[in-house]
Amino acid sequence: MVGISLGDPSGISPEVVVKALRDRRVKRALTPMVFGDASLEGKVPAAALQKVTALPAQDRRPGQPTLEGGRAQWAYIRAAISAAMRGRVDALCTAPVSKEVISRAGIPFMGHTEVLADAFDVEVLMLMSGPRLKVALATNHLPLAQVPGALKTQTLLRQLKLLAKTVGPLVGRAPRIGVCGLNPHAGEGGLLGTEELTVIGPAIARARKAGLDVHGPLPADGLFARAAKARFPYDVVLAMFHDQGLVAAKALDFERTVNVTLGLPLPRTSPDHGVAYDIAGRGRADPEPMVQALLEAARQARG
Amino acid sequence: MVGISLGDPSGISPEVVVKALRDRRVKRALTPMVFGDASLEGKVPAAALQKVTALPAQDRRPGQPTLEGGRAQWAYIRAAISAAMRGRVDALCTAPVSKEVISRAGIPFMGHTEVLADAFDVEVLMLMSGPRLKVALATNHLPLAQVPGALKTQTLLRQLKLLAKTVGPLVGRAPRIGVCGLNPHAGEGGLLGTEELTVIGPAIARARKAGLDVHGPLPADGLFARAAKARFPYDVVLAMFHDQGLVAAKALDFERTVNVTLGLPLPRTSPDHGVAYDIAGRGRADPEPMVQALLEAARQARG
Repeated sequence: MVGISLGDPSGISPEVVVKALRDRRVKRALTPMVFGDASLEGKVPAAALQKVTALPAQDRRPGQPTLEGGRAQWAYIRAAISAAMRGRVDALCTAPVSKEVISRAGIPFMGHTEVLADAFDVEVLMLMSGPRLKVALATNHLPLAQVPGALKTQTLLRQLKLLAKTVGPLVGRAPRIGVCGLNPHAGEGGLLGTEELTVIGPAIARARKAGLDVHGPLPADGLFARAAKARFPYDVVLAMFHDQGLVAAKALDFERTVNVTLGLPLPRTSPDHGVAYDIAGRGRADPEPMVQALLEAARQARG
Repeated sequence: MVGISLGDPSGISPEVVVKALRDRRVKRALTPMVFGDASLEGKVPAAALQKVTALPAQDRRPGQPTLEGGRAQWAYIRAAISAAMRGRVDALCTAPVSKEVISRAGIPFMGHTEVLADAFDVEVLMLMSGPRLKVALATNHLPLAQVPGALKTQTLLRQLKLLAKTVGPLVGRAPRIGVCGLNPHAGEGGLLGTEELTVIGPAIARARKAGLDVHGPLPADGLFARAAKARFPYDVVLAMFHDQGLVAAKALDFERTVNVTLGLPLPRTSPDHGVAYDIAGRGRADPEPMVQALLEAARQARG
């Protein structure tokens, strides 16, 4: 059973969820449980729908988000997490929300990944998993100015160990891990920044001492350029911050790249697009990223 | 006449320069003038060679850089710039150097772009120009921790104007410019950082008032994901920092992406790979990026 939080009722989320649940590959791979709005009745399998809200039409108007809709997005996530905690679902797949609208509704919300880490009280890692590249983020939804100070040798070491443990089963062997530098050219020997020498390098050295197959710190641009070619030597990359990793993952293979949370007691995936208010309600949204996210959740729940 | 600085004599630079100058496309497009070492004699057209150094074999051993080699790299650049200032060349193309080795030799060196800006006393902009994406960098070889403080509305505005002026002729019309945010999700309305609201947004607003076709600040990951698809709506993108722009440019089209310096009195291009000590001297280096850089220099000199 894969639990699905509906996401933003004014975005493309309901459309891609409905379309994805009609996809042949999804039907074959999993049984869904949708935490969403009563208006989905008749659009998804009846047994699959958990009516968390019954929003009036004005709070689910495409492209016109409301505060009530913001509260609903939050309620879907909470209901899905609650079901996961009670063992009613084996995996979670979260449809896109608007952080801005949820926050405006008075709920401090940095992202699903952060909420899940908090709910299960574990240290998690966000992994973008695509056919050509798997890239995890050492820091995630953090203002860029706070990134250098947030990187700690101890945390990086724990993240490398978590990667080795969780990516191993996905790739079928002890994974070869590449680690990005923080600075241009990975600091170029200290000329363009020192975090590679003082923080990242020591974490890699300690991970290697612990027997992990870890390499770096590597200049991010050169590293990801190699991912575009056939033989990429790393099973997974640890990027230091959001745009460093996500620009690469999305430029290389946007539609088939799924956002996976590592470290939780159950698998959690998500398509990594946004709520796309500009095309919401027009039937034009591509469900393929949602399909891939659902399939990945089912695969990991079985694995 | 395209002036070529030889780059690091212990890296792949001499090899890719020699191979590129034998390329049919290059021979047809330009007359080269190589600022390099006497050991190139017989390997490049005799009339093309300016013997800036006569290094003993030990200072040009593949993969084993020396301080003397570091000083030589610097001498080639200075000679090429000097020729440009005297009007002896119409464009510059610089082969890769090792910033680290040049710096160890006691010469403070942040990158060609910075040296050229200083030599010609102009404000320049680094543009990565590829067939699918042109992306310029608002900041370049700067430790990441210094990036947020380095972004200024006035500077961004000047950069947008320089982009409009210089990219226009390359694309044949007033360019449509996309501007990246600094923070994850372009700050998500202030939740993930404020520079979009206080610095970048105001620069865009002023550029638009001045009649420029500028859009943003846009989340970098979503923006570059669109560049991977067929119809990218921007002629050029202004990225806020090195890895944000270069990861995208290299992941999308490494071999055909050329580093171009905008704002100089003459065109300057460069392949954007490094010195690759690991494969230097083995005849395996791919000259295509150097070929593309030379062709782009010739194209811009004519244009």
